[in-house]
Amino acid sequence: MQTLAKDPGQSVSNELPLTRSLPVEAFHAWEAFFTRLVFAGLDWGDITIALEGFQARSTGGVDWRDWHDRWLKLGQDYEQSAEKALAAGHHLTARQWLLKAAACGHFAEFMYFDNAPLKHETRMWVTRVFHRAIPALEYPTERFTVAYKGLSLPAYFMRPATPGPHPCVLLVNGLDSAKEVELYVFAQSFLARGMAVMLFDGPGQGEFIGVEPLRPDFEDVVGTVLQQLRGNSNVDPNRIGIFGVSYGGYLATRAAAFHPRDIKACVNLAGTFDLDNYLSINPRVRTDFRFVFKKPNDEEMSRLARERLNLNDAPALTAPLLCIHGEQDNVFPYASCKRFMDWARGERELIAYPRERHVSTNYFADFIPRFGDWMAVKLGAVPQRR
Amino acid sequence: MQTLAKDPGQSVSNELPLTRSLPVEAFHAWEAFFTRLVFAGLDWGDITIALEGFQARSTGGVDWRDWHDRWLKLGQDYEQSAEKALAAGHHLTARQWLLKAAACGHFAEFMYFDNAPLKHETRMWVTRVFHRAIPALEYPTERFTVAYKGLSLPAYFMRPATPGPHPCVLLVNGLDSAKEVELYVFAQSFLARGMAVMLFDGPGQGEFIGVEPLRPDFEDVVGTVLQQLRGNSNVDPNRIGIFGVSYGGYLATRAAAFHPRDIKACVNLAGTFDLDNYLSINPRVRTDFRFVFKKPNDEEMSRLARERLNLNDAPALTAPLLCIHGEQDNVFPYASCKRFMDWARGERELIAYPRERHVSTNYFADFIPRFGDWMAVKLGAVPQRR
Repeated sequence: MQTLAKDPGQSVSNELPLTRSLPVEAFHAWEAFFTRLVFAGLDWGDITIALEGFQARSTGGVDWRDWHDRWLKLGQDYEQSAEKALAAGHHLTARQWLLKAAACGHFAEFMYFDNAPLKHETRMWVTRVFHRAIPALEYPTERFTVAYKGLSLPAYFMRPATPGPHPCVLLVNGLDSAKEVELYVFAQSFLARGMAVMLFDGPGQGEFIGVEPLRPDFEDVVGTVLQQLRGNSNVDPNRIGIFGVSYGGYLATRAAAFHPRDIKACVNLAGTFDLDNYLSINPRVRTDFRFVFKKPNDEEMSRLARERLNLNDAPALTAPLLCIHGEQDNVFPYASCKRFMDWARGERELIAYPRERHVSTNYFADFIPRFGDWMAVKLGAVPQRR
Repeated sequence: MQTLAKDPGQSVSNELPLTRSLPVEAFHAWEAFFTRLVFAGLDWGDITIALEGFQARSTGGVDWRDWHDRWLKLGQDYEQSAEKALAAGHHLTARQWLLKAAACGHFAEFMYFDNAPLKHETRMWVTRVFHRAIPALEYPTERFTVAYKGLSLPAYFMRPATPGPHPCVLLVNGLDSAKEVELYVFAQSFLARGMAVMLFDGPGQGEFIGVEPLRPDFEDVVGTVLQQLRGNSNVDPNRIGIFGVSYGGYLATRAAAFHPRDIKACVNLAGTFDLDNYLSINPRVRTDFRFVFKKPNDEEMSRLARERLNLNDAPALTAPLLCIHGEQDNVFPYASCKRFMDWARGERELIAYPRERHVSTNYFADFIPRFGDWMAVKLGAVPQRR
């Protein structure tokens, strides 16, 4: 008889209840993130294991360092299990656990801003863990870099296994998403429908958060990425689309407006038309903005936001546009979403959720297939059938 | 401009808060099921949408009719969306929503025993919804029936797309699982690793719950299923395994013991060796047992349990056995699991989780890949690589 695995919780059972459950304090403190954690492939068991024994601070507020350490620990446990699976030749299992590890590591750092070196270290661990999963991923995946103004932008190109060239969708991060986690999940919707995808970090995104500031002229970054994409024989350069989530929705739409000949369709998931409301956004998201744009205070950040971070002077979008927005969004208000619809000159469609907040996360399962189908139609992609 | 979708919550927004969240009462009442809901493919958003506005009863206890109606409503919403997707030719989207609908419908009825006709009606709706997903499922899937003592046992055969014959795993339901939901999810672990699967409802299982009693000699049912399987040219009759969850773990192990020449490996996920503890099991699970065995009271049920529902007189298992069990299981105690290990005569392995309860549901992501790999090794299956 061989015992294959032992619950690692055993070693701490002196301090914790005999059986495992989520403290109600953790429910109150973190419920707003549960949709996103589950969307990213984490189970309720992962949430329970990571957050068991959580205690609310007597001062109120949340302890992001505690959150960071809990999720990183679970991620490291998955990584260790994955190493054993790889050694045993169990590649599918290793893939699943490495993707779990990447998600745990990303959520460890995604809202943790008080210790920039540790945040960056954890973020780079996410990348390394994901790289180990690449040979086992469902779709053929290549790592490469895009040279941009002295930086090497890290990128993944993934494509259907069928012969190309394929239509291709660029996926654009928001302030606190990871190409290895959220973009990877969104990308499955395009891949399954016969489109290749390109996931990348521009300055101020993903691996560059806190390292290089996000550029107000993000279209310049996308221009360089598009140039490289045109040289990829697996890509049909006449069928390129773009997708962005949250602030990435703004960036994607902006890039599409500035590259009308290259980008044939645009999905804007919860992006904003301008940032004139910057000072009224909640403190956590303002911290996120300052960190990403490397601004020392709200005064400088709000000036940049007002002067540069909007589409007021951008050419009107001519490519088809799909906007998805929660009408109760208190980060990027719905009114701003409606400005996209007035501004764009091409075909435009709207999926609005009256009772949803930012990114309408209760409806991931509703809109992720919808935007995949929409893009497939716009780019003439052929969904995989077995 | 076209509006593609509107949040159905709009129509009830007079009674509900402006934005959507899960009431803490719902967290307290239903937390024990969250692992299972998410495992079955439901999102946190689904849980929030289904249970928003939930109020605890002043009498304590839970209102299973309310629970039933909430989940069925969400399932019907998904079905309606899926119909539109099918009409538009969006088969992948329809698959995802139909599987969601089936899961919602199953959880609507899985613990609802007070209205047997309604329970059965909802259960059959689950089957119909799943049938509509079959043409779009990832793996080739055939519906068929097994003739057994005047009944037509409903079954699905699913196989890798690669040429057969394949090793094949029979999956056995517990008291309250559905072949379209839990077994379907477990089956993916085998399919992805190069094994075909057969999911079926014996008397007292799935579609027959409350209609025909579960048979103490369940091995007789499996014998008939095995006979049919041997005639399937896609199956290698020398490489058949069996898997069972919860009470199905007992049934699977029992069947493997009685069919030593046919069944080459057995996974017992949280099954019990005997039911001598029947009267000490919690009331909800006792209701489940009485409903499934069609016994009018605990006295008759406990007599049947003591006299017939154990492996005391079964031939010792010779096929390799993998047991997975939570050491804090208060439905089927861990001590009972250890009896399997003493009783079996072949190779045997154990995955034990010291702080987990029944089915160790916090560790789905740990043990589902493990039992898939274990079975692949025992049956000589070749995992899919792209």
